[in-house]
Amino acid sequence: MKRRLLLVSNSTLHGSGYLEHCQQHISSFFGKDVKRVLFVPYALHDRDAYTKLARDKFKTLGGGNTFRLLKSLYDNKVVTEIRKRVMEDGVPYMGSSAGTNVATISISTTNDMPIVFPPSFSAIGLVPFNINPHYLDTDPTSRHMGETREQRITQYHEEPDTPCVLGLREGSLLLVEGNKATLLGTTKARLFTRKKPTVEYEPGSDLSFLLTDAQ
Amino acid sequence: MKRRLLLVSNSTLHGSGYLEHCQQHISSFFGKDVKRVLFVPYALHDRDAYTKLARDKFKTLGGGNTFRLLKSLYDNKVVTEIRKRVMEDGVPYMGSSAGTNVATISISTTNDMPIVFPPSFSAIGLVPFNINPHYLDTDPTSRHMGETREQRITQYHEEPDTPCVLGLREGSLLLVEGNKATLLGTTKARLFTRKKPTVEYEPGSDLSFLLTDAQ
Repeated sequence: MKRRLLLVSNSTLHGSGYLEHCQQHISSFFGKDVKRVLFVPYALHDRDAYTKLARDKFKTLGGGNTFRLLKSLYDNKVVTEIRKRVMEDGVPYMGSSAGTNVATISISTTNDMPIVFPPSFSAIGLVPFNINPHYLDTDPTSRHMGETREQRITQYHEEPDTPCVLGLREGSLLLVEGNKATLLGTTKARLFTRKKPTVEYEPGSDLSFLLTDAQ
Repeated sequence: MKRRLLLVSNSTLHGSGYLEHCQQHISSFFGKDVKRVLFVPYALHDRDAYTKLARDKFKTLGGGNTFRLLKSLYDNKVVTEIRKRVMEDGVPYMGSSAGTNVATISISTTNDMPIVFPPSFSAIGLVPFNINPHYLDTDPTSRHMGETREQRITQYHEEPDTPCVLGLREGSLLLVEGNKATLLGTTKARLFTRKKPTVEYEPGSDLSFLLTDAQ
């Protein structure tokens, strides 16, 4: 298994510049030998502008709208190809937010608005679980009555055969190297397993057990 | 056009009991002659419990998860039937939150998590525009970096041929009688039209122009 993934919760962390919160992890992830990066700008409407921004500032992340990103990946018939290149050929994959969602089993735990209809919610499947990026704790002082993030993920787990969901708070990222997964960043992550209590993990935790298909 | 709809943003408003914020509107909407209400519990997992709650407290609303609700409407082949009964036979329709989303053109402006995959995002189509229930203003003090509601609806309008989106804040509801639409409730609504500035409407506003297909 040659898979190498860097799955980031969010591109910008409040109070710091773009990508600043995970800059060092990005440098060590790609290393000195990587000279070229394929940037997938599908998640935002103006792809040229987004690509320019990415080129200028090394925004190699793939944030934006998850539905738009996944639909374009299917429309351009690259879902299987990306999976093959990452899983078999060892091409490193990095994503943030929407780019993290599409790397998992499905986009069923995105926070995005379903602005376009993809042919499936199944995603690239580089890991055998789902991620909720920008994971947000319930605010007990809020007067808003919409569902909390925890309630939404709980609704997902009411459906049969749904996989674990790793809630990556802003500032969190997951490094996957082969069959080893490590939580990096500055914030804790919350793991939701169907019919089990949730568990919090500190940065630095070994989450390799999530890569076992049985999870 | 016999259509009569009551489309509610939210079932519970902060600081008041269930349905309290729109109780009077519900009473006058159904009137004294309605003896039986068909309650559609598809949007929550435990349908029996939800139906009991609805029966006990007249929770005839259809809140819950929009994807689950729409998928079940399709699975049970009732989308066309509901449209016919409402549009041609004048059966009153009332929905809140998810129940409001499925009454519109599509569920593309729901806030819910895509926990199941419906065969289409096209919905019952009782009105020729979309609604964003639980509409939330941008909080300038927030440290969270996820997209604001306004940004999400703007992304929707980057797609071609997308209809108006009426942002119904919690406490808002829309009454539709034939070709007349009136904003009710205690909060303003925000109208998003593709490539045009947004407009705020006060409770009591006549929004009948939204029922013209040309919008």
